[in-house]
Amino acid sequence: MRTPEGFPVVGMVGAGQLARMTHAAAIPLGIGFRVLAADPTDGAALVCGDVQVGQHTSLDDLRSFAAGCDVVTFDHEHVPGEHLRALAAEGHAVGPGADALRHTQDKLAMRERLSALDVPCPAYAAAEPSTAVKQVRAFADEHGWPVVAKAVSGGYDGKGVWMLDGPDALGGLPPVPLLLEEHVGFRRELAALVARSPHGQAAAYPIVETVQRDGICVEVLAPAPDLDEDHALEAQRLALRVAGELGVVGLLAVELFETDDGVVVNELAMRPHNSGHWTIEGARTSQFEQHLRAVLDLPLGSPAPVAPVTVMANLLGGRDANVYDRYVHVMAKDPAVKVHLYGKQVRPGRKIGHVTAIGDDPAEVRERARDACDYLRGDS
Amino acid sequence: MRTPEGFPVVGMVGAGQLARMTHAAAIPLGIGFRVLAADPTDGAALVCGDVQVGQHTSLDDLRSFAAGCDVVTFDHEHVPGEHLRALAAEGHAVGPGADALRHTQDKLAMRERLSALDVPCPAYAAAEPSTAVKQVRAFADEHGWPVVAKAVSGGYDGKGVWMLDGPDALGGLPPVPLLLEEHVGFRRELAALVARSPHGQAAAYPIVETVQRDGICVEVLAPAPDLDEDHALEAQRLALRVAGELGVVGLLAVELFETDDGVVVNELAMRPHNSGHWTIEGARTSQFEQHLRAVLDLPLGSPAPVAPVTVMANLLGGRDANVYDRYVHVMAKDPAVKVHLYGKQVRPGRKIGHVTAIGDDPAEVRERARDACDYLRGDS
Repeated sequence: MRTPEGFPVVGMVGAGQLARMTHAAAIPLGIGFRVLAADPTDGAALVCGDVQVGQHTSLDDLRSFAAGCDVVTFDHEHVPGEHLRALAAEGHAVGPGADALRHTQDKLAMRERLSALDVPCPAYAAAEPSTAVKQVRAFADEHGWPVVAKAVSGGYDGKGVWMLDGPDALGGLPPVPLLLEEHVGFRRELAALVARSPHGQAAAYPIVETVQRDGICVEVLAPAPDLDEDHALEAQRLALRVAGELGVVGLLAVELFETDDGVVVNELAMRPHNSGHWTIEGARTSQFEQHLRAVLDLPLGSPAPVAPVTVMANLLGGRDANVYDRYVHVMAKDPAVKVHLYGKQVRPGRKIGHVTAIGDDPAEVRERARDACDYLRGDS
Repeated sequence: MRTPEGFPVVGMVGAGQLARMTHAAAIPLGIGFRVLAADPTDGAALVCGDVQVGQHTSLDDLRSFAAGCDVVTFDHEHVPGEHLRALAAEGHAVGPGADALRHTQDKLAMRERLSALDVPCPAYAAAEPSTAVKQVRAFADEHGWPVVAKAVSGGYDGKGVWMLDGPDALGGLPPVPLLLEEHVGFRRELAALVARSPHGQAAAYPIVETVQRDGICVEVLAPAPDLDEDHALEAQRLALRVAGELGVVGLLAVELFETDDGVVVNELAMRPHNSGHWTIEGARTSQFEQHLRAVLDLPLGSPAPVAPVTVMANLLGGRDANVYDRYVHVMAKDPAVKVHLYGKQVRPGRKIGHVTAIGDDPAEVRERARDACDYLRGDS
């Protein structure tokens, strides 16, 4: 990748929709951007001018990829920590680094670290496959049912999470190390998105509400409607503190439960995050641009919103594989709604894109985003 | 280029900054986008995932390029009309078509057509190399000095235009067919940007002021400050009418002089235009997205502004080839300003990028954009 004099190259491991949208953000910045794609038909590999096909689990592939980059970053959390340490030891800049990323790869390590930092978390315990049934029972005796069981590693997007409603659910426990958590009685789910650069500059986006259905985020409301100002500030400060304590470089998304008493941490991600897609149209600096600026140790951009309300709705595939005809109708109906497609073939329930609407009235903006998404899905 | 079922591929002939920014706009749309690049280091060729290297003057190159596209469009006006007609005759969709594009390739044809449509134009005459001196004198006798001489074809960005202040300037006339125009005493320069789709839908952006220095646009103020509402409407209507009458498909930029009596047409362009770069941050739909929607005959997007004021300043190269260090300082000083770089090596006076600022106060926004540009150039 040739760049003008002095301009660096960022390499992103993984070439899904996050890398695809990061590529779009990299273009105006004038930097070089390359992706390590598992498959040449991955969403980012289809559009990016600098693609290496290789596996994120192969240290050789990672090494040859990193050789052409000034800094290596990620569109997922699945690169083995030992590979990240090897790259760093060989002199490659990696952001976020292995020590920070570990808290997204190992949910038990995350809980232990956050608890040590006095960050509000659900009660939790570890459970091994051989003794899981006994451990869940003991945990439920103390914290009540339901018990939330999560795979310690490898889960994403609602996968790897089991809601155990009572003793009857114990027969179906997966044979993997588990993190058990109390079920938090929450009002709603929120997300805090912050960026942090190696020299320690940080920026916090407005707190958003994430609306979930069947464990998948279906809508993001920015800012979170009617959020108590204290809770909003608490959530932003919490995310900034976690980013600093964990030494995050790049974005940190903190998924939160809002309870009557404040916020409780659910999950962490260290990359552009679904809860931040609204920033493409809704903020002065998109999360994708911000992530690039952060990993390059460039000054961060303004996270200020550009409009009073932005709503992002995730587009899941329906039964009809051809979205294009419906896409035309959505554009005709609402000339100001923005449809983002990820270049994926449509499969029922697969996240194939998202829709963003911005405006002044929360109910109207939400309806516009949701209407467009429902119509695009085509099952209505 | 593989696209999801039903999604078309747009091919853009030319791979400069306009194609580069169009590529960025194509990504969220989910369509395929490929460029025909004269050189693999062209701005768009550096970032686009689907690049054919070839010449826009070669019908063979154009043919093989068009074979992989659902519609062919352009980032410049230099494709020979006979090649465009050949492609169309072979069944390729080309937007804009040869008949429309001719009015950007032949300034005399443009003047004749607009005059026939009663569109306000400067007085003009054609001059051939062998008789040019005599013709300029006769033209000056009727319309006064200075006389503006323009190459009938091949000019761009201030090149191919000569201001003849008096008889002394007649010795330096270039040996090419010329269009002579009276010098219009204008208050300022404006631009009207509209989009038109094959089925005839059209959309008009707010009228902007283009601030010129040495024949090069240095700033665009959107909307044009204190523009008389009648002049604004007149300019929008004029551009919409010209787009319709000429059968434009895609964008039409009309460069205008504002006089005491209204607006007068200076130049036409049928592609994304420098006067529309402000729309990336400043309008609901960027000109690049709009051009793609128009050539694909998709419903057009909202051209509404997102903020009261947007200012775009063109970044010209200075003496120092390394912009990156200054870029860091600009980001630190103004976290909300957006720098767009075109991936070009820096040369003095070369347009290497632009800066956009948006906000509420015209003077403050303009100063922010200008400050960032001046600092990036580095000669101050």
